Amino acid sequence: MKKAVILLSGGLDSTTCLAYAKHHKFDCYALSFNYNQRHNVELDAAKKIAAHFGAKHKIFNLEVNQFGGSALTDTNINVPDYDEKNTHIPVTYVPARNTIFLSIALAWAEVLNAKDIFIGVSHVDYSGYPDCRPEYIKAFQDLANLATKFGVEEGGIKIHTPIIHLSKAETIKLGHGLGVDYGMTVSCYKANEQGYACGKCDSCALRKKGFAEAMIADATRYNVT
Amino acid sequence: MKKAVILLSGGLDSTTCLAYAKHHKFDCYALSFNYNQRHNVELDAAKKIAAHFGAKHKIFNLEVNQFGGSALTDTNINVPDYDEKNTHIPVTYVPARNTIFLSIALAWAEVLNAKDIFIGVSHVDYSGYPDCRPEYIKAFQDLANLATKFGVEEGGIKIHTPIIHLSKAETIKLGHGLGVDYGMTVSCYKANEQGYACGKCDSCALRKKGFAEAMIADATRYNVT
Repeated sequence: MKKAVILLSGGLDSTTCLAYAKHHKFDCYALSFNYNQRHNVELDAAKKIAAHFGAKHKIFNLEVNQFGGSALTDTNINVPDYDEKNTHIPVTYVPARNTIFLSIALAWAEVLNAKDIFIGVSHVDYSGYPDCRPEYIKAFQDLANLATKFGVEEGGIKIHTPIIHLSKAETIKLGHGLGVDYGMTVSCYKANEQGYACGKCDSCALRKKGFAEAMIADATRYNVT
Repeated sequence: MKKAVILLSGGLDSTTCLAYAKHHKFDCYALSFNYNQRHNVELDAAKKIAAHFGAKHKIFNLEVNQFGGSALTDTNINVPDYDEKNTHIPVTYVPARNTIFLSIALAWAEVLNAKDIFIGVSHVDYSGYPDCRPEYIKAFQDLANLATKFGVEEGGIKIHTPIIHLSKAETIKLGHGLGVDYGMTVSCYKANEQGYACGKCDSCALRKKGFAEAMIADATRYNVT
């Protein structure tokens, strides 16, 4: 079995990627980050999801909050409600997040001698983040093959993005077909300590719309108080 | 004054870069990493050097040692003595290290709105690391402009490598001309707790040779016991 490193936040997209990698017979090494994100109930979800899929799992502590600059890690910036008219990169954007996550995944992959890294980015129903676009992923893959001992000597590092061209509804259909229980996943930027979703942030809005369009029952636990 | 983030290990090369950036009138934000490197007396040196140059300074804790795979962070692998016949990438290579360091520098740069990042890599007298080559730096710069909000919206992120084409001797001459006191810096992979160098590892061998070729007195403190 080929080894793969899977970036696993505990949300809907990354869980679908893990199910996809598992379905394609990869030996899965799931990697989550504790970056003092407001929605760190994700990490509890990630642990359960990794165990459910029989994946090895590491949680990497990352002090990006010492830089501030994002509503997800800086308590001085509020997470806004969803606004479909907003076309700018939103304040929930975390500076260089996917670059940092992929770099650390690459380090683990090199130690494992795993040539395959999975990341659940989508440029369709995404929140306007620049590091979710195909050209960004291509640039990272090129970098990875120049950056590392095994990339240079053997080549062929591949960044897999199985949902990059999928809408949220299509991702949900894909995962549903692979048997994913989305009730285990947490996407909300403002989930409470029990993992209940706010139903109002960008992430909740996109997720709700996805289930509706996919015509699949939404197993998300919403905080209705 | 333009802000710049300078990767500062506390060694000879990165200290020369800081002096260079300072000389070119950048407002300097020095960034060091605590990755449980064996030679963590570097960090004490980095603190003193940043203060000496009037730079802001952050130390970022990074648990890359949880992956192992390098003699610099894995206590099960010995640091070998210098062997000029070795043309392979050596065991002191830390998987994806510069990619991780640059990614985190990029995050800080974005929060600071700094478009300039300095890194003291050289592909001349280097230890055979793939992430010290010009094509790697070029690939990272391309990535940085695709990856970040300010890269995408404004462009022009630049990764400065003032010593990339310099031999160790030329780097020492450059720094000497800028008034660097190399006695403050620590390069040795096996320095003791007081910062005294072993004189035998790759890093010591290259440094010694550099001072000899530059015909500048070697201020390095060697452990002669």
